[in-house]
Amino acid sequence: MRTFAWLKGHGTENDFVILPDPDGTVHGALDASFVAALCDRRRGIGADGVLRAVRATDADAEWFMDYRNADGSIAEMCGNGVRVFARYLADAGLVDPSRPVPVATRDGIKVVTYAPDGTIAADMGTPRLLGESKVVAEGVARTARHVDVGNPHAVAFVGELDEAGTLLAEPEYDASVYPEGVNIEFVARRGPRHVAMRVHERGAGETRSCGTGAVAAALASASADGADPVRDGEVTYRVDVPGGTLRVTWRADGHAVLAGPALIIARGDLTWLG
Amino acid sequence: MRTFAWLKGHGTENDFVILPDPDGTVHGALDASFVAALCDRRRGIGADGVLRAVRATDADAEWFMDYRNADGSIAEMCGNGVRVFARYLADAGLVDPSRPVPVATRDGIKVVTYAPDGTIAADMGTPRLLGESKVVAEGVARTARHVDVGNPHAVAFVGELDEAGTLLAEPEYDASVYPEGVNIEFVARRGPRHVAMRVHERGAGETRSCGTGAVAAALASASADGADPVRDGEVTYRVDVPGGTLRVTWRADGHAVLAGPALIIARGDLTWLG
Repeated sequence: MRTFAWLKGHGTENDFVILPDPDGTVHGALDASFVAALCDRRRGIGADGVLRAVRATDADAEWFMDYRNADGSIAEMCGNGVRVFARYLADAGLVDPSRPVPVATRDGIKVVTYAPDGTIAADMGTPRLLGESKVVAEGVARTARHVDVGNPHAVAFVGELDEAGTLLAEPEYDASVYPEGVNIEFVARRGPRHVAMRVHERGAGETRSCGTGAVAAALASASADGADPVRDGEVTYRVDVPGGTLRVTWRADGHAVLAGPALIIARGDLTWLG
Repeated sequence: MRTFAWLKGHGTENDFVILPDPDGTVHGALDASFVAALCDRRRGIGADGVLRAVRATDADAEWFMDYRNADGSIAEMCGNGVRVFARYLADAGLVDPSRPVPVATRDGIKVVTYAPDGTIAADMGTPRLLGESKVVAEGVARTARHVDVGNPHAVAFVGELDEAGTLLAEPEYDASVYPEGVNIEFVARRGPRHVAMRVHERGAGETRSCGTGAVAAALASASADGADPVRDGEVTYRVDVPGGTLRVTWRADGHAVLAGPALIIARGDLTWLG
C-alpha cells in the first residue's frame, strides 16, 4: 500500500496520469508493473501513459519528463504528453508560463510555449520527409509518404476517413522500409491547410490522437501541396483528430511545432491498493 | 472546483467510481453531466458507472446504492456493481461481512454474502426463462433463449466465441420480443456446468463483463442441460467472461446468486477540475 500525489490530464483525448516526484524519492525508479497496473482502464485507473515529474539534473531545463507507455515500457517522447506535462508545471507554479519553458526528455530538451488562448505548443524538432511505400487497409493498397518524427510514420491520403475501415487489424506495410513497425495515418482533405486524420499506432491500435502523427500528416500534406517553409516562410496546418483539433506549424528552420489544448481534469492523493 | 472522497474498484473488469456520501450532503442529487464527465475514459477518470454510497432511509438496509450508468443516467441495479459496493462497505468497516448484508437499490433490497475465499455473492432475485427468438450476428441467424433478469437478455449458443465476430455492430434481434432493446450473450460450452460468454450490452456495445448476462447465460445453459433446481436441488455454473470468472447458483427457491471477485484498487481525495 502506497499513498502519493497524482493528477489526470489529457491533450486531444490522449490521457495521462501525472506523478509529481520532484526529488525522485516518491516513486524511485518507477516500476513497470506498477505503471501498467495504474494505466489499465478496467483493473486500474486508466491512461495512455504516465508522466513522472522529476527535477532535471542538467542546466538546460528545470524539469525532466519521465514518460512511460501504458504497458510500463520506457518511451522517449510524446507530443501530447509533453504539452500536458507543461500544463501541470504551469498550474503547479513550477515554471513561468509567460516565456518558453525547456523540458528535459529522453529525446533531449523540448521547448514548450503557452499561448494566451490556453493552448500549449511544443517544438517537436526537425522531422524528415522521406520516400513512398504502400500500406494496405481493408484490402485496398495506397501510396504512403514516409515521415520520420523521431518515430516512423506512413501517411496515406484518402477521400473520406471511413475508407480506412475499422482499423481493428493493423494495416499492412512494407517491413523493409519499417523494420521496427510504423504508425500509420489516414488523412482526408478538409480545406486549405486543413486536414483530418485517423491513426493506427504501432502496438496500440487506433487511438484518439497522436502528436507525432499529426506532425507527420501536416508535413506530408504540406509537401503534397508544394509548400516550402524555407522558400515561402512558415506554414500552419490544422489537423483534426478524433479527440480534438491540433495545429502544426512547419517553420523556416525546419522545426515542426505542435499546438493544441492541454487540460488537467483532476488532482489529489491516491492510496494504491491494486 | 470540488473536492471529495472517492474509490475505484472492479468486478471481473466491470469498473466503478465509488463516491462515499453517507448523509447525501457531499454530492447532493448527483448531477448527470458530472457523472458522465467523471466516467469518460479519456477526458475524465473513466469507469463503467458510479456507485454513490448513501445511508438508507428504510429499516431493511443500512446502505443505499445510488447507481448511475457511465452516461449519467439512473440505473436500477448492476450485479457486478452491487458486489463492488459490498466490498467497499466491508473494507470501510461500515457493515459486518461475517453475515449476509442487505443493500438497498432502486430494484429493491439485494442481499450480499462475503465468502472466505474473498469472493462476494449477490442474490439477483428470480430470473425468468421465457421463449425463443432469433439473433443475427455477422450474417448468421441463431436461436436465442429469452431470459428476464430484471432486464432483458437473448442467449445464443455458439461453437466458439469468435463465431460472434467483432460485435462492433449490434446483432439484429426481434424488436417485437424486445421492444426496449436487449442484451445479447453468445455462449460456448467449456465442460460440465462450465460455459464461456461474450456479451453485447444495449447502449454500451461489447463489454468485459455483465452480471445479469452471466445469470442469463447460466440459466439458459442449465435449462438446455435439463437441470431443474426445484426437482434436483441447486445447480452452479461457472461462467467465464472476458474480464474474469463468475459463478451463478440457481437455487431451489428460484433465486439466482452471482458470485465472483470484487476489488477496490485505489482510494483517496479528488479535486475535480474538469
